[in-house]
Amino acid sequence: MQKFIFPKLSQIGLVALAAYLYLFTNLVDAVPVNNAISQKQNIIFLVSDGMGAASVQLARTFKQVRDDLEFNDILDLDQYLVGTFRTRSNSSYVTDSAAAGTALASGHKTYNGAINVDPETKTPLGTIGEALKLQGYKVGIVVTTRVTDATPCVWSSHALLRGQEDLIAEQMLGIGHPLGQVNDLILGGGRNFFTPLNVEGGARPDNRSLVEEIKANGTWTYAGNREEFDALAGGENVTLPLLGLFAEEDIPYKIDRDESIYPSLVEEVQVALTALTKATEDQEKGFFLMIEASRPDHAGHANDAQSIAREVLEFNDVIDLVHQYVQNATTNTVVVSTADHETGGLSVFGTSPKDYSAIFNATHSSQYLAKEIEDFVNKDDEGALINFIKTETLEKGLGLSSYTDDEVQRVQKNVGTSKLAPTIANLTSARSKVSWGTDGHSAIDVDIYSFSNTPYLSHKVLNTKDGLGGAHENTDFSIFIKSIAGIDLDEVTDLVSNITVNSTVPSGGD
Amino acid sequence: MQKFIFPKLSQIGLVALAAYLYLFTNLVDAVPVNNAISQKQNIIFLVSDGMGAASVQLARTFKQVRDDLEFNDILDLDQYLVGTFRTRSNSSYVTDSAAAGTALASGHKTYNGAINVDPETKTPLGTIGEALKLQGYKVGIVVTTRVTDATPCVWSSHALLRGQEDLIAEQMLGIGHPLGQVNDLILGGGRNFFTPLNVEGGARPDNRSLVEEIKANGTWTYAGNREEFDALAGGENVTLPLLGLFAEEDIPYKIDRDESIYPSLVEEVQVALTALTKATEDQEKGFFLMIEASRPDHAGHANDAQSIAREVLEFNDVIDLVHQYVQNATTNTVVVSTADHETGGLSVFGTSPKDYSAIFNATHSSQYLAKEIEDFVNKDDEGALINFIKTETLEKGLGLSSYTDDEVQRVQKNVGTSKLAPTIANLTSARSKVSWGTDGHSAIDVDIYSFSNTPYLSHKVLNTKDGLGGAHENTDFSIFIKSIAGIDLDEVTDLVSNITVNSTVPSGGD
Repeated sequence: MQKFIFPKLSQIGLVALAAYLYLFTNLVDAVPVNNAISQKQNIIFLVSDGMGAASVQLARTFKQVRDDLEFNDILDLDQYLVGTFRTRSNSSYVTDSAAAGTALASGHKTYNGAINVDPETKTPLGTIGEALKLQGYKVGIVVTTRVTDATPCVWSSHALLRGQEDLIAEQMLGIGHPLGQVNDLILGGGRNFFTPLNVEGGARPDNRSLVEEIKANGTWTYAGNREEFDALAGGENVTLPLLGLFAEEDIPYKIDRDESIYPSLVEEVQVALTALTKATEDQEKGFFLMIEASRPDHAGHANDAQSIAREVLEFNDVIDLVHQYVQNATTNTVVVSTADHETGGLSVFGTSPKDYSAIFNATHSSQYLAKEIEDFVNKDDEGALINFIKTETLEKGLGLSSYTDDEVQRVQKNVGTSKLAPTIANLTSARSKVSWGTDGHSAIDVDIYSFSNTPYLSHKVLNTKDGLGGAHENTDFSIFIKSIAGIDLDEVTDLVSNITVNSTVPSGGD
Repeated sequence: MQKFIFPKLSQIGLVALAAYLYLFTNLVDAVPVNNAISQKQNIIFLVSDGMGAASVQLARTFKQVRDDLEFNDILDLDQYLVGTFRTRSNSSYVTDSAAAGTALASGHKTYNGAINVDPETKTPLGTIGEALKLQGYKVGIVVTTRVTDATPCVWSSHALLRGQEDLIAEQMLGIGHPLGQVNDLILGGGRNFFTPLNVEGGARPDNRSLVEEIKANGTWTYAGNREEFDALAGGENVTLPLLGLFAEEDIPYKIDRDESIYPSLVEEVQVALTALTKATEDQEKGFFLMIEASRPDHAGHANDAQSIAREVLEFNDVIDLVHQYVQNATTNTVVVSTADHETGGLSVFGTSPKDYSAIFNATHSSQYLAKEIEDFVNKDDEGALINFIKTETLEKGLGLSSYTDDEVQRVQKNVGTSKLAPTIANLTSARSKVSWGTDGHSAIDVDIYSFSNTPYLSHKVLNTKDGLGGAHENTDFSIFIKSIAGIDLDEVTDLVSNITVNSTVPSGGD
């Protein structure tokens, strides 16, 4: 074995860079810390669920090819990279969104599936959403999946299992929540867990209609479709608290979405920013807004290249919108963006623009195309089915100008099975030279992006003591929020200690 | 389509954070730029060839499992993350090491395979190594592959194709180089391109022995084996310029290495740091040292999990050693580390420590074990071969306590083919839940790490104008070096314009 001739120092010793930044921290903290915390602030936190560095690279290059841009044309996102999060949970090196969300929202590692409960005692853990609400912040949640899914719910909910979305829906509205109504604005999909099981599209085993209840008792305003969304007038015509549920479950992928029926994530975010800005205009505190591009994760699970590229680009459009908002905001605002984990084990090998043409030419997701085949009425007529697969799925749906008989047969063979959508997805992936290692999550670190309109907040982001620059554990997000807002999560944990964390009637979820 | 209610600004508009850091730059630049540049400085640049974020995560978790460490025990490397490089070349979204090396060393994108030549005119491009040498820096190169390979050679060489390693070997010694001897210290493998083809282990088609030539004319001191390496006394007994070639081609993987025969990368780096420190003690300028952990790339090409984990950990040990050196250095020293690209499209899905046991239990690389089988004299005796595969390859080599007959047959079936090593590698990968998307490179961005012992250099690293914080094109490295050392690469390009870039006798290489 070699001998070190240099003295062996502590492995975690502060580097010169760190020391330097720390010094700088203290200089800037001439703006006294308590003053900073008591200032009016907006905190915008974005999650692109399942987005790893490979999907960012895929989307960036896809955009260059699609829009005929220079090789060094980068995403808005790329301009704001500050660090990375490690994501493992208490129960696995590979986290799920519930444990990752809990780490981000409560600062505690827990088991996969848990929504803000301690892994040992199973007792509730206080969250950033609750802590900021207690300080007087308005709290908004905007997503493209069910609002009762893990990432949107972790800011105000507590449950032993993420699948208990009936219980979670109640808590999100403040029903049975010790702090009452924590959220002020909720926009997304997931009408099903607010709707009785015995009604079409409903999923609540207790057969309550939370939508009808809030309409009847007037505790929340409600928007349930595109028309009612449009009536919000981009956020100018909003009465908080507002619940907006625009799909039974997920809002469709960008590539499949009919925006005359479903609002886009960009539109939802615009409503939220305007409504929360107006609502906090005359109050001492600002707002906390959590925005999730929920479905890069779903596209990753589906190993669907054409969908993940467009979901990441929609997220990039949201970043652009938020950046414009922040530049014009009169309130000190900090933006932090990350992913909860990577999904799919994506890797990208395309060498030239033509390798991206299959992604560009596809007009629908693999799941949409699979459903189209399953819905085809003449499935039992083999000739008609093969013709449908060729013309509707491969040519129109995937935009393929050439394909083999073997490929057609592979699709046909999997009709009626769970392999149909993956088989279709693979036709694009293979042509675009992308590979997927799993239909689940991977353990790889995820990127952190940040910007602000205020020097002291930018500085706080890069502070080596409690900031987010460099490599971090995902629980460090709550330390950062504490540093800028002075929250005390232990205190919140005490306040929510008697919330019910176990649904009496367990239901589905994923 | 949604309408933006916020004014649409330039996509590349400076963010508040950037503006802030820029402001800060100007403050710190109260240390006048020219003064900074004229100071004595050491620049240490590390490349971990082929190391992506997934291999860092794999190595980090493997180390936690191996050494029974806490989940938040991180690599030395992890402490120094500052940004990412995009890596595409002039000819492909997926770079090779030659184009990536050229981008890093010369600041120019070129075609895959090119060593510092312009992609259009094919004329030579000046490099950072040459520019710093012209300023009076000592220049050192330390690697674990052939010193004539792309990453080590790009700091002083110019060739139309990376495979022209006979020409490259000459240029690295200063033979035929317009600037004379650029490198002061070269340590690694690759004796073959300094040795005649007609001598065992030689690869030079011109049958020159560069080793004998430098010994005869006394232009370089030479160390050619472990004994001669040990005589360097950890760098205390070095006469520059020094050429040290410790293997015909690659120095073996860490997992296979007999360190009584081959020095480790840590040992090589220790010699280089000590020798270059002593050599620059009394001179006005410091040194530029390029260190490459060359073989994470090879392990990635081989899809070999047990080898890549240990190669990355050896690189981490080098980072630790360099960090100790820098903390104690009296000269202002900046360290930058990155990868030239990711290799293998690795993804990691292990959920618990037991998923890492196959990586832990393996005692050799898949290539070593494949060669062992091919060298087995009784290969034609099926029973003996199967027994050898079971006991030597699977049980002793891979450390497997259980395996299937099908696995044994898969190995046996591939004896004598190029699939033997990949088949063996797959036995570990499958057990450790890692996936590989390719036996080539991927297009994913790579991480940048940095630290320094000097505030103005740490500041320069994070400077938004010409620093390395956040997301960057790999050509930005030369802009950073210009900002701290005032080099003029165009001037160097003029000075090397008449170097021969085309070998008259093309030879191999990869």
